[in-house]
Amino acid sequence: MIDNPVIKALMAHRSIRRYTDVTPSDEVLETIVRAGQQAPFAYQLGSVLLSRKRERNPFNAPLFFTICVDAHRTELVLAQRGWKLASNDLHVLLFGMEDAVMLAQNMVVAAESLGLGTCYIGSAQYRSLAIAKECNLPERVFPIVGLAAGYPAEDPPVRPRYPLEFTLFEDRYPELDESSVKQAMQAMDEGYLAQDYYRRANVMIPLEEGRKESFTFDNYSWTEHVSRKLGQWSPSPDELLEQLAARGFNLSAGPGTK
Amino acid sequence: MIDNPVIKALMAHRSIRRYTDVTPSDEVLETIVRAGQQAPFAYQLGSVLLSRKRERNPFNAPLFFTICVDAHRTELVLAQRGWKLASNDLHVLLFGMEDAVMLAQNMVVAAESLGLGTCYIGSAQYRSLAIAKECNLPERVFPIVGLAAGYPAEDPPVRPRYPLEFTLFEDRYPELDESSVKQAMQAMDEGYLAQDYYRRANVMIPLEEGRKESFTFDNYSWTEHVSRKLGQWSPSPDELLEQLAARGFNLSAGPGTK
Repeated sequence: MIDNPVIKALMAHRSIRRYTDVTPSDEVLETIVRAGQQAPFAYQLGSVLLSRKRERNPFNAPLFFTICVDAHRTELVLAQRGWKLASNDLHVLLFGMEDAVMLAQNMVVAAESLGLGTCYIGSAQYRSLAIAKECNLPERVFPIVGLAAGYPAEDPPVRPRYPLEFTLFEDRYPELDESSVKQAMQAMDEGYLAQDYYRRANVMIPLEEGRKESFTFDNYSWTEHVSRKLGQWSPSPDELLEQLAARGFNLSAGPGTK
Repeated sequence: MIDNPVIKALMAHRSIRRYTDVTPSDEVLETIVRAGQQAPFAYQLGSVLLSRKRERNPFNAPLFFTICVDAHRTELVLAQRGWKLASNDLHVLLFGMEDAVMLAQNMVVAAESLGLGTCYIGSAQYRSLAIAKECNLPERVFPIVGLAAGYPAEDPPVRPRYPLEFTLFEDRYPELDESSVKQAMQAMDEGYLAQDYYRRANVMIPLEEGRKESFTFDNYSWTEHVSRKLGQWSPSPDELLEQLAARGFNLSAGPGTK
């Protein structure tokens, strides 16, 4: 690993879920969002909602951003040029998500460089109707991800990641044999257990359908946690498809059928 | 704007499409991908393919990454714990894209801090079958975005962005009246024209359906360019849906129907 101030900042990332009472200045806010905007883009489809009502924000964070795919704004630009958006909604959503998430991740890096902590909140897509109502969103704006930010009132350690060789594959995707899978799981599980992560957070996802609990906080760790989410949650896409459709995104339709 | 080495790096971003012959060291490569991995994640669904065959890479870049949503690897982890991935494919794709793009954007920031330049290539989703064949991808790995990287052999200026007030909206999404839309368009168009961007790139998207060309490189700029893309290209989602389906992602199906 090579070291420099930027690499140091990236490697020091951990999510922050407790914030001090200090309110970030307007200049800090502006710097974060401007640095976000400077991320690469395909179409500048990302836009940012902000709430500074900390009593209503997740973790009572002083800043809470909701990063959206904003086809509405793009349609206004196209209209000025005499064009209608003709690309299909799936294309707009997927490329818009790239724009939006690049923007969001630059905001995270910028915020942390200014001494703030951040935490993504993944529920925005499932809360898009509620957010739309709250923020008076026009049709064709779809909330992608929430981002809490503020000065940290906790100092958690950096969390583990998969080994590099379980993520980076040169030329051909390798056969991931049992021993490499187990090694990756061990890195994650022993890492989180050493930090007592789930006991401190007091989080253990309940088992459904009569499965019997056999874990305690002594052995419940990251791979079990993720397995219970992806093994039990959201079997049907209907809820997400409905949220998208209500916001004006129909993933299987061409422009003629809208 | 507040300044520090990280903010400076973020604000200095521009895409690089010409690279020197210098090959980044293995340590540089490892630092970039490790910094990418340290990005926040929901499920660590991002994985990274690498090609160092520069003669085959876009722009003959010495490094070419393809960042993927990798449900295959996650399924191997779940299987070790006796679970099957039950969450629907749309959920996995959208949350996986967040993981993958956060990872990719951290890689961009890391690479630039080490003196490299980068350029995203947006065609990966539409080339997923070809990439799958080339790289022997197992089912359930979907390429999201390409990323060229290497030492810059050009020094283009930073490109313009929408004004901050056209991107950041506090509490309620505002009515974007004609004058604010025009102002944002002007910032983009005058910015790109001042850099002679499209003339230097020699890019003007042809008009389809008998529309008559009335632009020259003296007035063809960013909003016209984007209008021609989004106003003409990819009217049907079928191609993208087919690529996804062939990779094992069925966006409208629950687990029972796979």
